Amino acid sequence: MLDTFGMQSQDFVLPEDLALDKVVQEVPSGIEPEHLSFLVSMCGQENVSTDTYARIDRSYGCGMIDSIRLRRHIIENLPDVVVAPRSQAEIEQIIGYCNEHRLPVYIFGGGSSVIRGFEAVKSGISLDMSKHMNRVVAFNELNQTITVEAGMSGPQLEDLLNHAPEKLGAKRRYTCGHFPQSFEYSSVGGWVVTRGAGQNSTYFGKIEDIVMSQEYVTPKGVFKTQDQPRAATGPDFDQLMMGSEGCFGVLTNITLKLFRFQLQNKQRFCFMFKNWDDAWNAYREIMQSEFGYPSVFRLSDPEETEVAMHQYALAGTPADTALKLAGHKPMQKCLLLGYSEGECGFARHIKGKIRSLCLRRGAFNLGPMPVRMWEKGRYKDPYMREDLQDFGVMIDTLECAVTWSNMEKVHQAVREVVHSRPKTICMTHISHAYPQGSNLYFIFIARMNSIKEYLEMQYAILDAIQKSGAAMSHHHGIGKQTAPWLEEQIGTPAMDVVRALKLHFDPFNIMNPGGTLGLDLSEEQKIKSWSMNLED
Amino acid sequence: MLDTFGMQSQDFVLPEDLALDKVVQEVPSGIEPEHLSFLVSMCGQENVSTDTYARIDRSYGCGMIDSIRLRRHIIENLPDVVVAPRSQAEIEQIIGYCNEHRLPVYIFGGGSSVIRGFEAVKSGISLDMSKHMNRVVAFNELNQTITVEAGMSGPQLEDLLNHAPEKLGAKRRYTCGHFPQSFEYSSVGGWVVTRGAGQNSTYFGKIEDIVMSQEYVTPKGVFKTQDQPRAATGPDFDQLMMGSEGCFGVLTNITLKLFRFQLQNKQRFCFMFKNWDDAWNAYREIMQSEFGYPSVFRLSDPEETEVAMHQYALAGTPADTALKLAGHKPMQKCLLLGYSEGECGFARHIKGKIRSLCLRRGAFNLGPMPVRMWEKGRYKDPYMREDLQDFGVMIDTLECAVTWSNMEKVHQAVREVVHSRPKTICMTHISHAYPQGSNLYFIFIARMNSIKEYLEMQYAILDAIQKSGAAMSHHHGIGKQTAPWLEEQIGTPAMDVVRALKLHFDPFNIMNPGGTLGLDLSEEQKIKSWSMNLED
Repeated sequence: MLDTFGMQSQDFVLPEDLALDKVVQEVPSGIEPEHLSFLVSMCGQENVSTDTYARIDRSYGCGMIDSIRLRRHIIENLPDVVVAPRSQAEIEQIIGYCNEHRLPVYIFGGGSSVIRGFEAVKSGISLDMSKHMNRVVAFNELNQTITVEAGMSGPQLEDLLNHAPEKLGAKRRYTCGHFPQSFEYSSVGGWVVTRGAGQNSTYFGKIEDIVMSQEYVTPKGVFKTQDQPRAATGPDFDQLMMGSEGCFGVLTNITLKLFRFQLQNKQRFCFMFKNWDDAWNAYREIMQSEFGYPSVFRLSDPEETEVAMHQYALAGTPADTALKLAGHKPMQKCLLLGYSEGECGFARHIKGKIRSLCLRRGAFNLGPMPVRMWEKGRYKDPYMREDLQDFGVMIDTLECAVTWSNMEKVHQAVREVVHSRPKTICMTHISHAYPQGSNLYFIFIARMNSIKEYLEMQYAILDAIQKSGAAMSHHHGIGKQTAPWLEEQIGTPAMDVVRALKLHFDPFNIMNPGGTLGLDLSEEQKIKSWSMNLED
Repeated sequence: MLDTFGMQSQDFVLPEDLALDKVVQEVPSGIEPEHLSFLVSMCGQENVSTDTYARIDRSYGCGMIDSIRLRRHIIENLPDVVVAPRSQAEIEQIIGYCNEHRLPVYIFGGGSSVIRGFEAVKSGISLDMSKHMNRVVAFNELNQTITVEAGMSGPQLEDLLNHAPEKLGAKRRYTCGHFPQSFEYSSVGGWVVTRGAGQNSTYFGKIEDIVMSQEYVTPKGVFKTQDQPRAATGPDFDQLMMGSEGCFGVLTNITLKLFRFQLQNKQRFCFMFKNWDDAWNAYREIMQSEFGYPSVFRLSDPEETEVAMHQYALAGTPADTALKLAGHKPMQKCLLLGYSEGECGFARHIKGKIRSLCLRRGAFNLGPMPVRMWEKGRYKDPYMREDLQDFGVMIDTLECAVTWSNMEKVHQAVREVVHSRPKTICMTHISHAYPQGSNLYFIFIARMNSIKEYLEMQYAILDAIQKSGAAMSHHHGIGKQTAPWLEEQIGTPAMDVVRALKLHFDPFNIMNPGGTLGLDLSEEQKIKSWSMNLED
């Protein structure tokens, strides 16, 4: 970073702005007294709040745009009231009432959206699912499933499953297998409605593979899918509701498939390839060879590998020297790391096959240590964003999905856009893999102070992703941020289906209105100039 | 059979009815001359037929009810005309025309439906996709995908893939991994719209796991899903269109994920368990142990195992004697057989783990021979139905999907219904497995002559399946046969979504009308008395 930005070490001594000052601004709630009375009578005074801080907290997510706005005390798009329902019955009453009175409803799960998922653009009510709607509904060990309320957090779920014998009366310990980078602050409901992915998804699957059934409260009534392992009984309603991002109704509970807890079988591996072409073809080959999939499986492109050499404490070590001697060059070499899981022999076999395939492709075996380093930072690294901002450096991440035959085109197109701005870093990795393709995850880092400039970069990347034929998101979802790019990517006939479903479930557009999923884009959103007028 | 039905060997010497006589009846076509002219001008005279035989052939499937009706010369529900379009452009023109003139459209793929899937209940036009719409559209070896037209047959596809180097210019040989019992006479389009399953689905997945993208011509226009390995961009449109059974539009082409052809790695196994409880719990345990899934994986219940002893030539062999000595009793013991596939070490590891798990549960190792016997008959066994009818014996199969915790309830409920009729065989097996549950496949065999009695048995089984909480189908689909049971199983809110989608894609109900998927059930269908008035 010092090199790229022409910064000195002393530039990182005195922060420009620690942003620890309180956001003092009071924003009056516009809620009608009779609506407030109804909510209080329904959920109790202690579960209804019009306090400004609570309303900011339940409308802003964890995206870069959220962080930037808070740092600059830009407060917009707040709900009038935050309500924490205590049961599905209360949610049914509230949705019925809001439908009747045309009150917008936003749903807060864990608050970790990076795509302005639950931002209360049209004010109204924010339903806070995290306070009460976080209980176990049922546990079925024969089926290896658990049913939980949508507001349950990742760590709460995982703690229950890991200690299933003590906490659920089970015979074994389990895991959900879903560990997004946002794990600590994400909710099960958020995973599901956005089609999230955990960092171990290559083995466990994305959340849409892990979900068995769901229950929603929609303006049209309760909608519950079936607990069946598979069926040939018409469309798959689970796959139709997942990705609805709060626009069809409130997800109240989810039945998840479970996996056995057998972390003791974890098999770590790390290899360095001489160039990107060898690296991603080996990576693809591993996914197409049918010996089972690794769990964590991450490949960094040359630019990211340079950062990784420092991040995983490889730079300057004997391994670094050995790499140089073996002809691995800076800005060419590519780091692959991960681990396999599952039954012991299965995990070992996968690691063995990966090793021989990588060595055959001329890779250098770096052993398990870099993986351990990655594991240490897997949830914490994103917080560096805040520290970097203290020193005037902006960082953001954008991601998409690609087929193998389109991967390089997308990779190059986005890198070109980022590098068209001087002194800007563009790191890329693949971290979720399939036999037919993968995700692509871009991180741009720049010394940047202007919101407008930041948004122009973000929008240019989204444009490049769309124009090069990738899916606009692999696991962040669409929200209000990426919404203007959705229709052109999935096509108008597909958007028409989303609109037909919206009309079916939510005819008065009370659920998460304000552009989510491209359903009711404002004129500004349509021309992709939304938020561009935020004061720098 | 001799024992159960009180029949003698000589009863199987002289057939009661060989049913080789020609169905001579002429049924005049009701098509308006101007519609016929349009179709001829569009597709050419040679691709348009009003011949009675062609119309029967393209309306009747391979269900027992189809066989019974043909044997008794009961000809009903014929289309007015059979048209074989040559391109998607022609299909677009035809669907536009039919939508304008409100002409019913039925779609014929391979003709192997067993649920009255494409029966032309409202007459109109039958689109024969098998004649021309059976070409390769694209092959992408980097992605391991192939795009084919919907009318391509299973054997045609598999032949292309197995000989990909010669026929597609590929580097490797491939397989589609989808081998339903109807393989020889099924079409790719039929697999997809019904959510079919191959007999190897436990490893390769059901067709909904194998499909990458699809293109439909609907009355609303062309609807094409995206080629992406995964996405978080709203609902999954592939999973919404699969299961539409011709009610939303005409599936014209499909992109399928491919697997490497490595049959040389096949690892066969066969075990006998002492009782059903041990057997299905071992089977479940195998699916939940995370060492990878076998490909073919079939477990017969005690009654089916008795038949299997003869079918796989085990009865009277030294193995049979050894089983008896080891305490395996008739009508208690259960046969498990299958094989693993994929990369060599992966396949071996799975077989090894299955062996040790089965032996630990007290199973007897029968070696690979019964599997070879099963492989010989895997596509041919169903034809026995015709021979049995020659001698007055009826046989039919019904299937459903269950969770493990509900499996025994469904198994017992259906067996009870079948056995409530004296001298009736009820064989059951599990042949498609998941960690959370499986299918259940029922075969009833009876000396029976009355259509009414046959249908009463079928309807009673469907009732039992629904009431005990199973999914009405795991892979046959719903069609017009199972349609009256659908809404009560999936629930009215889910049916309302199907109806909303139907209205969106096909507002004038021209696509596969007449009860399919429960969309426009007749009064007779609603009270489950449809076809009951067929003459015996």
